Amino acid sequence: MPHSTDPTQQSQIEQLLQFLSFPSISADRAYADHLIECAEWLLQKFDSLGLAATLHKTAGHPIIVARTPPRPDLRTVLIYGHYDVQPVDPLALWDSAPFDPHIVDEVVFARGATDNKGQILAHILGVEEALKKGPLPVNLIFLIEGEEEIGSPHLGAFLEENKAELATDVVAISDTGMIAPGVPTFTYGLRGVAALEIELTGPAVDLHSGIYGGTVANPATALARLLATLHQPDGTVAIEGFYDDVDPLQDWERTAWAALPLKPEDFVSLTGVTELFGEPGYTALERVWARPTAEVNGIGGGYQGEGSKTVIPSRAFAKLTFRLVPRQSPEKILALAQAHLEKNLPPGVTLAVHPGHSGSSYVVDPHSADGLAAQRALENTFGATVALVREGGSIPIVQNFKDILGADTLLLGLALPDCRAHSPNENFPLANFFAGIRLNQELLRQLAGTT
Amino acid sequence: MPHSTDPTQQSQIEQLLQFLSFPSISADRAYADHLIECAEWLLQKFDSLGLAATLHKTAGHPIIVARTPPRPDLRTVLIYGHYDVQPVDPLALWDSAPFDPHIVDEVVFARGATDNKGQILAHILGVEEALKKGPLPVNLIFLIEGEEEIGSPHLGAFLEENKAELATDVVAISDTGMIAPGVPTFTYGLRGVAALEIELTGPAVDLHSGIYGGTVANPATALARLLATLHQPDGTVAIEGFYDDVDPLQDWERTAWAALPLKPEDFVSLTGVTELFGEPGYTALERVWARPTAEVNGIGGGYQGEGSKTVIPSRAFAKLTFRLVPRQSPEKILALAQAHLEKNLPPGVTLAVHPGHSGSSYVVDPHSADGLAAQRALENTFGATVALVREGGSIPIVQNFKDILGADTLLLGLALPDCRAHSPNENFPLANFFAGIRLNQELLRQLAGTT
Repeated sequence: MPHSTDPTQQSQIEQLLQFLSFPSISADRAYADHLIECAEWLLQKFDSLGLAATLHKTAGHPIIVARTPPRPDLRTVLIYGHYDVQPVDPLALWDSAPFDPHIVDEVVFARGATDNKGQILAHILGVEEALKKGPLPVNLIFLIEGEEEIGSPHLGAFLEENKAELATDVVAISDTGMIAPGVPTFTYGLRGVAALEIELTGPAVDLHSGIYGGTVANPATALARLLATLHQPDGTVAIEGFYDDVDPLQDWERTAWAALPLKPEDFVSLTGVTELFGEPGYTALERVWARPTAEVNGIGGGYQGEGSKTVIPSRAFAKLTFRLVPRQSPEKILALAQAHLEKNLPPGVTLAVHPGHSGSSYVVDPHSADGLAAQRALENTFGATVALVREGGSIPIVQNFKDILGADTLLLGLALPDCRAHSPNENFPLANFFAGIRLNQELLRQLAGTT
Repeated sequence: MPHSTDPTQQSQIEQLLQFLSFPSISADRAYADHLIECAEWLLQKFDSLGLAATLHKTAGHPIIVARTPPRPDLRTVLIYGHYDVQPVDPLALWDSAPFDPHIVDEVVFARGATDNKGQILAHILGVEEALKKGPLPVNLIFLIEGEEEIGSPHLGAFLEENKAELATDVVAISDTGMIAPGVPTFTYGLRGVAALEIELTGPAVDLHSGIYGGTVANPATALARLLATLHQPDGTVAIEGFYDDVDPLQDWERTAWAALPLKPEDFVSLTGVTELFGEPGYTALERVWARPTAEVNGIGGGYQGEGSKTVIPSRAFAKLTFRLVPRQSPEKILALAQAHLEKNLPPGVTLAVHPGHSGSSYVVDPHSADGLAAQRALENTFGATVALVREGGSIPIVQNFKDILGADTLLLGLALPDCRAHSPNENFPLANFFAGIRLNQELLRQLAGTT
């Protein structure tokens, strides 16, 4: 173990490698026993720290809850994480076996290294270190599930059923990213999402385009015409009322984001596009973090094979999602979208609209007492100014914590942009792992003092 | 054999059932030996008539050529047909085995009954009847191939190689339809076709629509915007210059077609649409037979499965075909389309255009000497006024005959609208079969006199 001469750090690394060696792939039921083994390993770890830990069976994979003895005079912090991991395909692209974790140049490579085993274990080991010095300054609850990578299908019901036991003042999660190496990052906003699928139907079956072309509307053409009405040519969403409830960007946000080490050209190189495109009047970062969108996620209809087949398709479909920002309601946006689609439907086809999943956007005030505490913890841990960011994606469990437990969530991510979560050669720098161990102690200390 | 008490007709029916019993499916190489058997059966039939018949091997299925001894004082007529048939799937939808032909209510049911064995055999048996009475009034060449249902891949080269031997004044084909039972139908025009596939590319890989939505152009959205520029809202093609070379409909055509027993409501019931749609100022029939179109035959990009996946697709494609009418050049239309697509390309994506197959439209003057001869033959055979029609589809071999042999083609179809060519329960009424035998003799007689 050449990575540290400190025996405590050596032991922490060994525990990380053990935790990473469980192939806890939640998406594949064939791995179910490995998830149970992994959950039991956590249970044992919490037992060894003297926390009251329980393994809760669900219809899927178990949930672990561990807690310090409650003291009514202390604030309560719930730290959420997950021990399940993404599948490993394509295996051929890994430089080493995904569940045989090993360390190269102070970076550990394994499936789950960054998402989320490395980050949640740092919190557990932070508590272990703190407990050696004395009792924690807060009541602490660990909630660690095994189904995050498959959409947390049983977590909402579990929160409802155990609402009293899980009551907390605030939630902390380390499952997001740092904007750049060495830049501590506090994520204070997430976009919401609303999905719908549309289907246009014309003729009863695919028709010969020679025999019938010219007499009937073509559903693929009609779909194109309909989707083309969703945006203005400049990329602005053209649905009436779409922007009505959008919270404008604050001046301090625009100033802070402009100073971040994430430039428009970075989006070009990250995505491989020839040029950026989007709503005028906003930077690329502002568009992703604070502006709503309408995206076509999939489109299809008619002949899909090689060469050509001269048909008029019977039907064509599109899968749409809207990314939403604070104060936009998913239900209202879906209703506005449906009205827009019905109003702009070309003649000769019929429209079916199927609403899909949706989730609200989320924002926590970074200048609230807990927001500031989280930022102090990050700054003390990394010795650098904290980046205040939002993310363009959605984390539905954050809304669950708000709705069911009534608690805000602090997102203190430790993943670097090249940690390859969900991809081959997932990795986590040991420096970030040890930073996470320190961050946990700083965070609990800072949150203890806020009321 | 209760269908006829006439021994000649009994024998003709028996020969039809024999011809139909060969499973001569050209698309499936497993049936190759059956195609050879079927071709040899034809060879034997022509031998028995005293015609000089040869079986020509190709890289695919054989071509049969049979001819009367050439006399320089007679005109030459080439009758084209094919002995190959479409596959039979879905077999479960057939009421009886497709290669066990049988007769119900004076209609023969079998794969190939109408397309094209019933029709080409009628011509052969017509010649047999005529030869009993004396020499034919024309030099006759039968050209019968085994690859029509797979696009005649070897016929063009065969025509080139045997141009001198196949020299003819006119070509006749019975492989099109009658507009209604009892209505003799002369098809004097076909639409051409020009195909192209377009592909729009944005990001290098599918992107997370939360993390990147708003910064980059979405190729599926861009494709919709681009395809939406192909037409005016009323269905007119919006490509500049698209209609420049279109021959206008003649007054006599509009009058004649308006009188045909094929009404707009028939297109509604045939296609299952809620309403017809197309270029204003023309009837449904006029739009299909005499107006060019731009159709999206297939469209695709991004997520195609159940539910939703929040991606910005890396690419999206569309397969387009243009149906063309006389004097439109496929090459020119493809060039105009490409220029239109490049000009209207939305920002942030790159366009690739892949031209596909193309074929010219075809028209023969129905008031030419041969056109009038064909109509007299039809009228004398059926004892009814001939319908003058065009078809919306394309028959590329007709253009081959024009380009390589320099001969016009007369299309004298015997199929009824419910003969189910290419579909389960394909059938051909014996009345049409016997009419075809008479038609052949009328046709050769009428064509003999025209110069």
